[in-house]
Amino acid sequence: MLNFNFQNPTKINFGEGQIKIISKEIPLDARVLLVYGGGSIKGNGVYKQVIDALSEHTWFEFSGIEPNPTYDTLMKAQEIIKRENIDYLLAVGGGSVVDGAKFIAAAALYEGKSNDECNDPWDILAKNVPVTKALPIGAVLTLPATGSESNGNSVVTRDGNKLPFNSPLVCPLFAVLDPTVTLSLSDRQISNGVVDAFIHTIEQYLTYSVNGKVQDRFSEGLLQTLIEEGPKALLPDTKENLEVRANIMWSATMALNGLIGAGVPQDWSTHMIGHELTGAFGIDHARTLSIVLPAVMKVRKEQKREKLLQYATRVWQITDGDDNARINQAIRLTEEFFETMQVPTRLSHVDLGSKDIDLLIERLEQHGMTALGENNDITLDISREILTQAL
Amino acid sequence: MLNFNFQNPTKINFGEGQIKIISKEIPLDARVLLVYGGGSIKGNGVYKQVIDALSEHTWFEFSGIEPNPTYDTLMKAQEIIKRENIDYLLAVGGGSVVDGAKFIAAAALYEGKSNDECNDPWDILAKNVPVTKALPIGAVLTLPATGSESNGNSVVTRDGNKLPFNSPLVCPLFAVLDPTVTLSLSDRQISNGVVDAFIHTIEQYLTYSVNGKVQDRFSEGLLQTLIEEGPKALLPDTKENLEVRANIMWSATMALNGLIGAGVPQDWSTHMIGHELTGAFGIDHARTLSIVLPAVMKVRKEQKREKLLQYATRVWQITDGDDNARINQAIRLTEEFFETMQVPTRLSHVDLGSKDIDLLIERLEQHGMTALGENNDITLDISREILTQAL
Repeated sequence: MLNFNFQNPTKINFGEGQIKIISKEIPLDARVLLVYGGGSIKGNGVYKQVIDALSEHTWFEFSGIEPNPTYDTLMKAQEIIKRENIDYLLAVGGGSVVDGAKFIAAAALYEGKSNDECNDPWDILAKNVPVTKALPIGAVLTLPATGSESNGNSVVTRDGNKLPFNSPLVCPLFAVLDPTVTLSLSDRQISNGVVDAFIHTIEQYLTYSVNGKVQDRFSEGLLQTLIEEGPKALLPDTKENLEVRANIMWSATMALNGLIGAGVPQDWSTHMIGHELTGAFGIDHARTLSIVLPAVMKVRKEQKREKLLQYATRVWQITDGDDNARINQAIRLTEEFFETMQVPTRLSHVDLGSKDIDLLIERLEQHGMTALGENNDITLDISREILTQAL
Repeated sequence: MLNFNFQNPTKINFGEGQIKIISKEIPLDARVLLVYGGGSIKGNGVYKQVIDALSEHTWFEFSGIEPNPTYDTLMKAQEIIKRENIDYLLAVGGGSVVDGAKFIAAAALYEGKSNDECNDPWDILAKNVPVTKALPIGAVLTLPATGSESNGNSVVTRDGNKLPFNSPLVCPLFAVLDPTVTLSLSDRQISNGVVDAFIHTIEQYLTYSVNGKVQDRFSEGLLQTLIEEGPKALLPDTKENLEVRANIMWSATMALNGLIGAGVPQDWSTHMIGHELTGAFGIDHARTLSIVLPAVMKVRKEQKREKLLQYATRVWQITDGDDNARINQAIRLTEEFFETMQVPTRLSHVDLGSKDIDLLIERLEQHGMTALGENNDITLDISREILTQAL
């Protein structure tokens, strides 16, 4: 096990009927900005539950945060924050809304650097300017997927450039996870969420072994839960089952709250390559991952051999065949799981081909993604090999 | 899954050489009381590492906290706290020292109730007076076992009465877990720690199913890790292996930091009955648990049937035989694991017999332990049956 420092202070309020707890979680004297997306929360009753809970608070609202939230949209929130002296953000939505709220929170109190070159909050992402202050955030999660409700990670897009930042200062103070809220999601949203959580786990698991037994067992438990419960959330007979929804929701949070990645190597090459697919072609985040991951597994088979074998045995219970056969079978079952979840596993499934790879490689280079993976040895050439494998 | 609220703010600093981090974790203007036990930390180098890290802090010390810390000992710390205006406690030791520091922290700022009847900090335990203020606590863990370094639980003994209390206000702000520190522990201390962590997990797992898949997979992962790594920490060839120590240490923390118990029923009857064995006869905490648990499994076989079968299959990989045979085999393997860990599994192993049961039942009654277990249906009569089964 590697040395690590781990802290996750987010208070989780999990279960049916928990939205009302925000009345107690947010100080009564706060000036709250309710931040949300396209308005689906008005159709499914979440908006009403939230404003009922805020009946004794002073609150305003900012809507229109899109999937893969953009800098341009998020910066528009600054005007109401200044005008109304907002001092608390309540994000109500999925990972994009929570990610967006994090950037809004950091941008609101952005001080830049002492020189004049970094006076735009975008520099937090583009030039790694550290966040030194941020508005407090609470989250009501409507789409289990990114774990953003209890971590300090955020991804924002500007002019087709999709970049991440991280700060403990933007980690939500509390999160409400009510699985009933997810019943109104579309199949596509549920699929994307399950696949996203699955691949978050894989990024922290499928590297090389450091004998972190607790972390490995926890990751395998999350993967197995998502493999078992994910498809049920798409089948007519089981899709309304609240236990299925609860297990998916809690898995997605645990997949990226920092715990399973503490003390073990992490990969994230699938994510970094996937971000370029979203940035350049607008493909759903999870669907970029389900295209890239199988190719990463194939191209990095030797480097990930030990963990791929462990994955085959412990997650898929594959015991027959030699090492290569077991690894190939595990990759095949991973692809089949993605297919059951109705997400693409090839670039051709989203109408991309070899002609598009140059642009993706160019973008990776532009964004400094020239040494990816747990060993920082996935060069641009290897990324090209991965994308070619994914054709 | 049941509804739950979960938060664990303790910052974990894990790994070799992490003790020096306390110089940064504790504010420089704090007046620190270093709290420890019998002085073993002076023999194994931990004390020196701690005071080196505190070289720029103002600090005092209070030692002599015993295993199963007593009210009388802990109250002696109040004098130096008042005299030196202590405002930060640094607990350096195992679960008893951390538990003791928690009571000291709460007692230092105890206000009692408005009436005069609860003006003794003991009333926090004896009369459930809530903790409203406490000194901040940091912990350097030397014995992985209780999880006390990242939870709000404490157990204190007074006149043979061993009682628990809990408050988020006494949860350590940070904990240092350096597995090298555990190399100087005796076999008995390691055994006790592994068995304690194992049974903490069992208390939150072996109840009835609420289909909490994440919690169940995490618990099974901890149990398997302790079953695999525990014995290695006693064998000459592997006992110095740091990876073994690290896996045990992280398992013990995760076993009782609240995570695996969030959203699932909890038992704790083994602990409550075990506490009386310690209180009345001075038996090591973990050794009371290894005596009581197998008897609880046998007496509550019907109530715990579904989870016992899951435990047999998923933790012990037992697939042969009918339900009863698989359950009996799982209980037998649990006893054998305890025997490998060199702890007793019968009252007779600690020279107790049927003549001692009356006193234990009397104590349980005195302490209000008349409806134990996940269904509050373990009456005094059933506790007697359990103790008789354990003879």
